[in-house]
Amino acid sequence: MPGLDHPSAAAVVPISLGERSYDILIGEGLLGQRGTWQGLPAASAVVIVSNPTVLALHGASLQPALSATYPRVLVVELPDGEVHKQWSSLDLIFDRLLAEACDRRTLIVALGGGVVGDMAGFAAACYMRGVPFVQVPTTLLAQVDSSVGGKTAINHPRGKNMIGAFYQPLRVVCDLAVLDTLPARELSAGLAEVIKYGPIADTAFLDWIESHIDALRARDRAALAHAVRRSCEIKAAVVGADEREAGLRAILNFGHTFGHAIEAGLGYGQWLHGEAVGCGMVMASDLSMRLGLVPAAFVERMRALCARAGLPVRAPHLGGPDRWIELMRVDKKAEGGELRFVVIESLGHAGVRTVPDALLRETLAACCEPGP
Amino acid sequence: MPGLDHPSAAAVVPISLGERSYDILIGEGLLGQRGTWQGLPAASAVVIVSNPTVLALHGASLQPALSATYPRVLVVELPDGEVHKQWSSLDLIFDRLLAEACDRRTLIVALGGGVVGDMAGFAAACYMRGVPFVQVPTTLLAQVDSSVGGKTAINHPRGKNMIGAFYQPLRVVCDLAVLDTLPARELSAGLAEVIKYGPIADTAFLDWIESHIDALRARDRAALAHAVRRSCEIKAAVVGADEREAGLRAILNFGHTFGHAIEAGLGYGQWLHGEAVGCGMVMASDLSMRLGLVPAAFVERMRALCARAGLPVRAPHLGGPDRWIELMRVDKKAEGGELRFVVIESLGHAGVRTVPDALLRETLAACCEPGP
Repeated sequence: MPGLDHPSAAAVVPISLGERSYDILIGEGLLGQRGTWQGLPAASAVVIVSNPTVLALHGASLQPALSATYPRVLVVELPDGEVHKQWSSLDLIFDRLLAEACDRRTLIVALGGGVVGDMAGFAAACYMRGVPFVQVPTTLLAQVDSSVGGKTAINHPRGKNMIGAFYQPLRVVCDLAVLDTLPARELSAGLAEVIKYGPIADTAFLDWIESHIDALRARDRAALAHAVRRSCEIKAAVVGADEREAGLRAILNFGHTFGHAIEAGLGYGQWLHGEAVGCGMVMASDLSMRLGLVPAAFVERMRALCARAGLPVRAPHLGGPDRWIELMRVDKKAEGGELRFVVIESLGHAGVRTVPDALLRETLAACCEPGP
Repeated sequence: MPGLDHPSAAAVVPISLGERSYDILIGEGLLGQRGTWQGLPAASAVVIVSNPTVLALHGASLQPALSATYPRVLVVELPDGEVHKQWSSLDLIFDRLLAEACDRRTLIVALGGGVVGDMAGFAAACYMRGVPFVQVPTTLLAQVDSSVGGKTAINHPRGKNMIGAFYQPLRVVCDLAVLDTLPARELSAGLAEVIKYGPIADTAFLDWIESHIDALRARDRAALAHAVRRSCEIKAAVVGADEREAGLRAILNFGHTFGHAIEAGLGYGQWLHGEAVGCGMVMASDLSMRLGLVPAAFVERMRALCARAGLPVRAPHLGGPDRWIELMRVDKKAEGGELRFVVIESLGHAGVRTVPDALLRETLAACCEPGP
């Protein structure tokens, strides 16, 4: 329940969405603390949805904390990886819930990164037309991105996140201690989404990230706490004004139209989502510069920061500009058949624009590896 | 948009759900009239989701009316029947929408009975996390039941309607002329849900149904118009007070716990849903009588009315009372493991109760065919 004290949390970001409001708790060691799990509605059973990697690392902390509050704690293990973000994995959840006669007062706890969160959240949205769920994001990317917005989805062979729902959790638990075990490559991928919030909404935050990028990569807890908190606050302000993605919220997709093309063009899982977004932000910055909105120095600033964050800043060869444009057109931002891009209108402010084809091709030529 | 004039409709039932409000239009020949399709938001494409039987009967009326308003009208034909109310059928819709590059401004029109409406509605709820949809229910049951409430779902091998969403249409078009081609057995099944609204909410309507049951079975348009309108009004009042089925809305499931057991026990599709509900209402009335809530004469009244409506009033042998109870326990109304039944508290008022096991077994013994 928003507004309640959460004694074990270092910080609380309230997400105000009327009757769907909830709190994001940010702190160290939260998932194993009983206080983290207080104040949730009564449930007949709790189902932890996770994957083998995350369960091995954090299951032993989470399960006793939940068992202290709920008499029945089940675990559903999903196969690991984006390629499994599909119906057959969801069905593993449904099969188990029904086999265990779980009713509408079942609480689903998503323990994992974005893939687990998307699937557990979508399963919660659909099971008996909706059961409560709590997110425990275990990657930096999921903590700063999936914590706010209620987006859940699975992939379709023809596109990423094409089938899903807007469905809000009851609570999000961002435990900074779990980031200790995150591979460095995934930490960098998460930093891409942190960096994103600077140019689209908060130049002071962009300055702060630049001066703390080494501390963040070294997993300094105080730096991570601030990065997670500020990212969630900015996203909450944007989403609060546009819960169902009618307009403003699109600015959160800065870098994503290019990024999705990279992910789809290389095949999902080749680049991490955050890596594709990092490179996509450099491309979108380049496009903004060509539209005359930002100086060339800004593009270099974004390229340098992404590189320091450990992100790729040069786009892969996907088969030439026509193939790029085809891949981007499938992206769901291509409403009414027109390609639209999130661009930086001025530092700290983003907008959505259609772009002259010639400029787009200039950006592709400037940012992509040449073909073989 | 609620409140607008709909010149071609004989009656309009406004459904008030805040920003999700919409109108139910009731009239003769509505689906082929251009006025029916005015006032909806702009769409980049319209996709009619239907089945071969319904398309053959009504596709030729609907398509030109839609083409007059929308430049691009696609048709997705789903296999006919409850057994196909599953993920693979939904995927036919998603495949087509993505193959045709349909974006988030795609309007889905569900043309068919409850199965088509459930699948098209759930597909609309999930496609790109939600696209607009309009329901054109072509059975009496769908007109009086699916028109209000926003329930969409698919079945799971372990239970009916287990996976779904609450998702409201933009408009519902109840065309009384399409009922001319409805098989008599399906008309009777629809009358079960019409009858239901009497004992749970409106004794005057129950009286009216009794005096018009022959006209309804003869498809008298004026009688059907009143039956559809009053049914939708009653359901709207109940759902308006409880959109997400937290409490009051459960009374709409009068007869359904028994009915779902019949459907599951015999295998879906043996009895029509409305037939199972008709028989289930007789059983729930019998149970109400055994709880001392209503006189035996009421049970006989319900049994006689259902029989006159062409509905089965004697429950099939499903393998004995323990099997019945097991089947009902899977039903999602069995929250927290307790079996709960909608009963008539007094004529015109329903409530939800747990029931002593002995009384339940008396009802099963009184209402079921003996075993072989």
